[in-house]
Amino acid sequence: MTRYREIADAIREKIRSGEYARGSVLPSNASLASEHAVSTPVVNRALQVLQSEGLVRAERGRGTVVHEIAPLVRRAVERHRRTVREQQGGAFASEVSRLGHTPRSNLVQVGPVTPPPQVAEALGLTDPDPVTAIRDRRMYADDTPVQLATSYIPWEIATGTRITQPDVGPGGTYARLAEQGHVVTRWRERVTTRSPSEAEGDFLKLTDDQRVLAIERVAYTAQDRPVEVTVMALPAHQWTLEYEWEDES
Amino acid sequence: MTRYREIADAIREKIRSGEYARGSVLPSNASLASEHAVSTPVVNRALQVLQSEGLVRAERGRGTVVHEIAPLVRRAVERHRRTVREQQGGAFASEVSRLGHTPRSNLVQVGPVTPPPQVAEALGLTDPDPVTAIRDRRMYADDTPVQLATSYIPWEIATGTRITQPDVGPGGTYARLAEQGHVVTRWRERVTTRSPSEAEGDFLKLTDDQRVLAIERVAYTAQDRPVEVTVMALPAHQWTLEYEWEDES
Repeated sequence: MTRYREIADAIREKIRSGEYARGSVLPSNASLASEHAVSTPVVNRALQVLQSEGLVRAERGRGTVVHEIAPLVRRAVERHRRTVREQQGGAFASEVSRLGHTPRSNLVQVGPVTPPPQVAEALGLTDPDPVTAIRDRRMYADDTPVQLATSYIPWEIATGTRITQPDVGPGGTYARLAEQGHVVTRWRERVTTRSPSEAEGDFLKLTDDQRVLAIERVAYTAQDRPVEVTVMALPAHQWTLEYEWEDES
Repeated sequence: MTRYREIADAIREKIRSGEYARGSVLPSNASLASEHAVSTPVVNRALQVLQSEGLVRAERGRGTVVHEIAPLVRRAVERHRRTVREQQGGAFASEVSRLGHTPRSNLVQVGPVTPPPQVAEALGLTDPDPVTAIRDRRMYADDTPVQLATSYIPWEIATGTRITQPDVGPGGTYARLAEQGHVVTRWRERVTTRSPSEAEGDFLKLTDDQRVLAIERVAYTAQDRPVEVTVMALPAHQWTLEYEWEDES
């Protein structure tokens, strides 16, 4: 194994064990070089590895800072359980609270829109000029941006409900959908990895060599009607996605 | 939007539509620059974007080649259904066949090993020096490497079965486990994104700026006993992961 990878491994382990605390500043590159008996370019390369993993970042005037938020485990099945969601006002809030952080969500857009073609298709909207409600949110764990999420609901279902208002009310969108007779009972998520768009990179504070996990979720009723599509972007280094299922054959 | 991103979008769309066929060579950089009325450095930057997405690659003496295999959708729930698995001799083979490619798998290691600590923990092995069977495979769609997978099964379950032999027999490992009274009925997968190790990068033919999806899967019996852990690495640009579940609250 190359030397810089060994040093990256050693520093990663010290962050994992807590010896280098979350939010703290690492020893200077010169001091790390001396500790590991290598040149500073080798230390720089090791820190680049850790930076692309999102474990550390360079901060002007401070040095190399250990990222405040440890990797978050997103439990897809548990976070969508009605009992779990309703306790915390939504899947995201319940997830982030369980992980010991304070969830926060800023709504940046709400109202009627023409959805992107793949969203219209997933919702089964055959009208050539379909309309959906949009709920576009920026989401934080403590003060760290951890997710962008944009939800689309067919306009005929959302209109006249609080889904089209800034405050969707207790229990979130799924509670409002249920009140309209559209109880969501099944979900499908598709996960891909890609480079962030410029807007995503800015909000999620990603460097050029980092990636996002792009998740497209479709929510279905018991009658198999798709009633919501949510498109999410998450910093890939920040999240572990967990899924569970049983054999139904 | 910056010019190189627009050009990347235009070329991506032509690959998607089939105008630039899979496995074909793109027009020269000079000809692309002339077509889009930009300088060749702008075209180079656009091609770098597509290369990091795994859509194209530079090939010495040929030029820019369109990657042969389109993104593969991995349907976690469907591929693990007993009826589906048994038709094709395993989840991977059924998946790749469904997608119109020929699956191939090379076994590189089989036998008893000391598993990594996180595998021993997931299997609930409390012995300080635990032993499992290992099945370490390199997997292809047609002739393109698309997955590395290493499975671990507690030795007391695997010993004396074909799980410890190179040819595991019809129906794969799960069929042998079932014969021993360990019918797998539930799975849990954890997905992370990371840079490839050197060995992974070599086999999966990844450039430095590409990533792998690392999947850890645990298979449980109806009695909630973990009987297999599989650790996988997949080129992130090659795969879309699909999961489905129902609300059980």
